[in-house]
Amino acid sequence: MRFKLGCSLAYEVKEPTTFIFNVEVAQLRSLDIASESLTLAPDLARRVYVTPDLKNRYLGVNVQPGPFSLEYKAEVELTVVRADPETISETPVSELPLDILPFLLPSRFVSSDRLAAFAEAEFGHLPKGHRRVNAICNWIHDNIAYQRGASDGETTADESLLKRAGVCRDFAHLGAAFCRALGIPARFVSCYAYGLVPSDFHAVFEAYLDGRWWLFDATRQAHLDGLVRIGIGRDAAEIAFATPYGEMQSTGMEIRIDRADGGPEPAERTVDAISTEEPAPHAGAV
Amino acid sequence: MRFKLGCSLAYEVKEPTTFIFNVEVAQLRSLDIASESLTLAPDLARRVYVTPDLKNRYLGVNVQPGPFSLEYKAEVELTVVRADPETISETPVSELPLDILPFLLPSRFVSSDRLAAFAEAEFGHLPKGHRRVNAICNWIHDNIAYQRGASDGETTADESLLKRAGVCRDFAHLGAAFCRALGIPARFVSCYAYGLVPSDFHAVFEAYLDGRWWLFDATRQAHLDGLVRIGIGRDAAEIAFATPYGEMQSTGMEIRIDRADGGPEPAERTVDAISTEEPAPHAGAV
Amino acid sequence: MRFKLGCSLAYEVKEPTTFIFNVEVAQLRSLDIASESLTLAPDLARRVYVTPDLKNRYLGVNVQPGPFSLEYKAEVELTVVRADPETISETPVSELPLDILPFLLPSRFVSSDRLAAFAEAEFGHLPKGHRRVNAICNWIHDNIAYQRGASDGETTADESLLKRAGVCRDFAHLGAAFCRALGIPARFVSCYAYGLVPSDFHAVFEAYLDGRWWLFDATRQAHLDGLVRIGIGRDAAEIAFATPYGEMQSTGMEIRIDRADGGPEPAERTVDAISTEEPAPHAGAV
Amino acid sequence: MRFKLGCSLAYEVKEPTTFIFNVEVAQLRSLDIASESLTLAPDLARRVYVTPDLKNRYLGVNVQPGPFSLEYKAEVELTVVRADPETISETPVSELPLDILPFLLPSRFVSSDRLAAFAEAEFGHLPKGHRRVNAICNWIHDNIAYQRGASDGETTADESLLKRAGVCRDFAHLGAAFCRALGIPARFVSCYAYGLVPSDFHAVFEAYLDGRWWLFDATRQAHLDGLVRIGIGRDAAEIAFATPYGEMQSTGMEIRIDRADGGPEPAERTVDAISTEEPAPHAGAV
Repeated sequence: MRFKLGCSLAYEVKEPTTFIFNVEVAQLRSLDIASESLTLAPDLARRVYVTPDLKNRYLGVNVQPGPFSLEYKAEVELTVVRADPETISETPVSELPLDILPFLLPSRFVSSDRLAAFAEAEFGHLPKGHRRVNAICNWIHDNIAYQRGASDGETTADESLLKRAGVCRDFAHLGAAFCRALGIPARFVSCYAYGLVPSDFHAVFEAYLDGRWWLFDATRQAHLDGLVRIGIGRDAAEIAFATPYGEMQSTGMEIRIDRADGGPEPAERTVDAISTEEPAPHAGAV
Repeated sequence: MRFKLGCSLAYEVKEPTTFIFNVEVAQLRSLDIASESLTLAPDLARRVYVTPDLKNRYLGVNVQPGPFSLEYKAEVELTVVRADPETISETPVSELPLDILPFLLPSRFVSSDRLAAFAEAEFGHLPKGHRRVNAICNWIHDNIAYQRGASDGETTADESLLKRAGVCRDFAHLGAAFCRALGIPARFVSCYAYGLVPSDFHAVFEAYLDGRWWLFDATRQAHLDGLVRIGIGRDAAEIAFATPYGEMQSTGMEIRIDRADGGPEPAERTVDAISTEEPAPHAGAV
Repeated sequence: MRFKLGCSLAYEVKEPTTFIFNVEVAQLRSLDIASESLTLAPDLARRVYVTPDLKNRYLGVNVQPGPFSLEYKAEVELTVVRADPETISETPVSELPLDILPFLLPSRFVSSDRLAAFAEAEFGHLPKGHRRVNAICNWIHDNIAYQRGASDGETTADESLLKRAGVCRDFAHLGAAFCRALGIPARFVSCYAYGLVPSDFHAVFEAYLDGRWWLFDATRQAHLDGLVRIGIGRDAAEIAFATPYGEMQSTGMEIRIDRADGGPEPAERTVDAISTEEPAPHAGAV
Repeated sequence: MRFKLGCSLAYEVKEPTTFIFNVEVAQLRSLDIASESLTLAPDLARRVYVTPDLKNRYLGVNVQPGPFSLEYKAEVELTVVRADPETISETPVSELPLDILPFLLPSRFVSSDRLAAFAEAEFGHLPKGHRRVNAICNWIHDNIAYQRGASDGETTADESLLKRAGVCRDFAHLGAAFCRALGIPARFVSCYAYGLVPSDFHAVFEAYLDGRWWLFDATRQAHLDGLVRIGIGRDAAEIAFATPYGEMQSTGMEIRIDRADGGPEPAERTVDAISTEEPAPHAGAV
């Protein structure tokens, strides 16, 4: 599918502030960027960094006090891989590529070590594979209330589980935590999400099953085949859309994503398993 | 300095278990590996992975039930960079290379976000630079008791601060957490440590100051110029010397490091600032 | 039923230590103490305190270094009140006696405030009354593993819920926490428990329903009509069987309870609702 | 000193709600209530409960939806006991009356067990007595920022210590936690506080030293000899000025306290040790 997407971010900066943005779509083979522009006002010097492995694109800007804004626009063609969920098995730890192992470890907000017993008790006995991760998402959807204001920037997966409430960030952390606790590598994904109402940056997670990464959205709020990736991280800390070092205030924020191919709206959400990431080459791993 | 070092690890494996080891010294330009051997008994197939950025060396082995052991030996020449601590300033966030920013973020055990106010109150007013990180180490050394059994594998930096006790792992987590909370990138380092009594794997941390990484050991138990690096990570989760997936029991563990150059013992510990890591090229960062 | 019960506690005291014991059965109208003896060796001065409201009996002893032991024996006749669980409704907060309200509040280990959403989501929709508290016990029994060593003296109800494991103390804390979170007063009860294997001090909880306190044991390990009460508290902190202020070591501990009426063993555990506490007069409350 | 004091509380009640208020001054011998009135609008039925031991006065009201308000006025003569702080020693645990021991235990917000090592490290070596508790207050005053919004109704003493910020409730919890951790009984006190700007309900704590309870205010915001007690509790949970069970909104709140004896303002705050509580008779304790 083809999408037009972008965001407008505005700030009132109070003191010299370094911003790290991660709002540009990732440079993936599965994502063809037809056109793209990023405008800063005022037009300040940019520092750019693309992570070698995951292709996250970071933009660093040092901003003086005053109003500051960023405008990003892109048109992209997203190719997804579809599969029958029933055919996707789990990869045992003994066969996992070693470069994937970091995504089995607990991280700041994906406190999988603290949820080991809970995950085992709820999901340990379920049939393995894509269906088990789907069952985890169903459980989260049924047991955690989607509730703005229920969490803040320090909320961990175990806290969300106790509070039985959170936003997309927390749903993704909890899903990833249950997976890691069960020996399934999982990572946090930020994205533009087609079909999300109201429009906003979205967070989902990917689980590594049967040799590749598959997308899961425990909030059930967006189309899995309409998620255009921005960044991948161990958790939300690594791929915040904006990380400001300095005092400032957000004065505006708008996120957009629309179909650009004139195609008809999908009648229903797909129940296929969806992957947008090509299998990594694992050059370093033998 | 030249060192002979190594370790012997023995296990009784109860069920098919995948071990990930990280005990080999890192492949650094500052660390010349004269000779090296790693033996497994039984001699099982090995999977090897060297992280592209940090050069950590991971070894994966799938082990069947029964006794299992690993023996590692190396002779290395360690070259350190020395500097007068007074001359080492802090790098403001506005000038930090973007690839270093992950080491400013909170991680599972380096809960720097929860320690922001504490760090600011205790260390925010101190003169910046190497001396400030040294002051942090002094504070930890004076206020946290080195106490075996005070922590476990889930203990975070904020918990160690409350308990006022920990082991080298916790001292390094807390030092790194205070640094990150103050805007100083910091990372966790595992190593063979010359002078450590009793001999064991050791953990210290590095802070990024004035364009390179400098070593700090808040436990004050080893020689800073005798730390032979194994791994670098956000925190202990990433570079455990052994991560077993399966039921097993440790039945023996011995860690060795000795001078191999016949050189006289250093009369006193250096008060120089010590760095063993060459400045990274930051090829990806502009 | 008539019981012979008691305990033997032995210590090696390292420095002058004040012990507070709470091992004597409570002075209740429902509990007729036929005979009783408490011996200390050496035979030190005793300080005694009976709480005016709940009739817990505390014994204070100041002990010098050396061996120290306590031996308690009693023969008691326990009268319980039985009712059909279906007939026991909940008392709305608007009708609760004010002196009972403290047992609606969170306490150190009964962290009902942190479990409010969890309790509401799992149990909020269930039919109210004795059957709802019984459903809470069933849920705990089915979802929390009884596991020695899973908790320590600082473990709270929310931590036990995450760890999905605990001992009788934790089961009682969690049951009480869910009740308080739902507006049902609940308190922690220590007791001699007929039928418990292996014999030990036991902990259960009481919920206030329909005008009186009813016993619940989420571990399902003892006979509800064979629980001989020692103490009542907000949680375990208030009624530890021994609270030592000073360095000492436990060198022996034995707890006993047997039928003393020659009556036949009950074929099955009762499914009646059981209460051993007379309705309090609430003299102070209007 | 003689004071006129009171409060006005207004609510918009959304559903049938039971309120428990604790705003009336305590019935103490040291506090002569010259006149007093409490008005409810609408004038609903009242349930009243005075705790037998501490003389807290609770008022229960069942309110229907609509506006609801409470107006309380009193004129009281407060007699305080003064002493030279240097003369006030600590009472060793071996000599503490047993009925005071509950105030040595951790409670929901006074997490003294989690602060044991911290308290010992910071204050364990200090000269004992009133001066040690005063040193604790100085430490809190110097190290914790008084900051509205820094805490909420679930914040514990250890969390305030990490955040280095709180309000009067948190200062009192932390002071009490350090005391209990050191073996000094301590309790939470709510009061009308002469000199507090802006006027509000205030929270302080009392420590049991040398046979009686002494007042401490780590915020240093009010006159110690102008604290008119409302309630005493293990912590804030037990003596909230208003505990509503039901949905409602606070629409107004005003707290007043003024000198009523025409006496001149005190030039400075007293540095005497201040106690307002007569020594309890400990009738039950031997």
